[in-house]
Amino acid sequence: MGKTVLGIDPGNYSTGFSIFKITGKKHRLVSSGTIKTSRKKPENFRIIYESLERTINEFSPDEIALESSFYGNNPQTIIKLGEIRGVILLLSAFYRIPVYEYTPQQVKNAITGYGWAKKEDVYLMVQKLFNIKPETNDEADAIAVGFCHCLSKNL
Amino acid sequence: MGKTVLGIDPGNYSTGFSIFKITGKKHRLVSSGTIKTSRKKPENFRIIYESLERTINEFSPDEIALESSFYGNNPQTIIKLGEIRGVILLLSAFYRIPVYEYTPQQVKNAITGYGWAKKEDVYLMVQKLFNIKPETNDEADAIAVGFCHCLSKNL
Repeated sequence: MGKTVLGIDPGNYSTGFSIFKITGKKHRLVSSGTIKTSRKKPENFRIIYESLERTINEFSPDEIALESSFYGNNPQTIIKLGEIRGVILLLSAFYRIPVYEYTPQQVKNAITGYGWAKKEDVYLMVQKLFNIKPETNDEADAIAVGFCHCLSKNL
Repeated sequence: MGKTVLGIDPGNYSTGFSIFKITGKKHRLVSSGTIKTSRKKPENFRIIYESLERTINEFSPDEIALESSFYGNNPQTIIKLGEIRGVILLLSAFYRIPVYEYTPQQVKNAITGYGWAKKEDVYLMVQKLFNIKPETNDEADAIAVGFCHCLSKNL
């Protein structure tokens, strides 16, 4: 009956993740963390892949909620985010987990009620709602996108 | 003593690959092909990963030569190319194969002598030099980038 959601916020320096367990109309944050990717390319992709794979094996998520930012002024930044997305989408294909994408505005709106909220506001709301101090903004964002998915699915 | 090079031209609809065997100062094209990726995301990434993995297992390349185009007007196109790059870079990390990147201009210059040559000219030169009719322009480009790598390494 229950469902498990893996929230992911991919970033150039670190990637946040969260795990929500949903039972009936209730959702509960059961895990979250940050994958540091300070290591050089392409080693960082192996680290992201293997870390997320461990999380998938531990929690067997049914769905992935992914924060997707497509726009920016710098093609180098866009392509780097694309590379990390490729690694995540490959994992979703291997494990046959459907991916639901949310824009930063949707995620911010879900957690703070305002689509153009600042990073710190997202962090504070995550802290307040889930009684947790995320290690990084990416972890807070991953919790926020998992939460956004629960809301949008009416979970 | 010999060295094996895997050339890759990643594309949104198909990804070309080539295998060069290098012995002494001589290089020889021993295989090439096209990975069709008409299937939907993220299934297409699994297809690219598994096809290239089979090629890696068959030929054990020592180096990867990758055609890298970073610029374009459309962020959606750039991010899609980034996603395929992520899959390729992940493979290079898992198999510990160093990646050498070449711009389209470097590749075109190596094969035709002119950095702004048309796709058809690249195709014709590949056909002429290697006595082969590539199935797609992506395959021809993958042969060209492998050749470009051989030249730049003075192989």
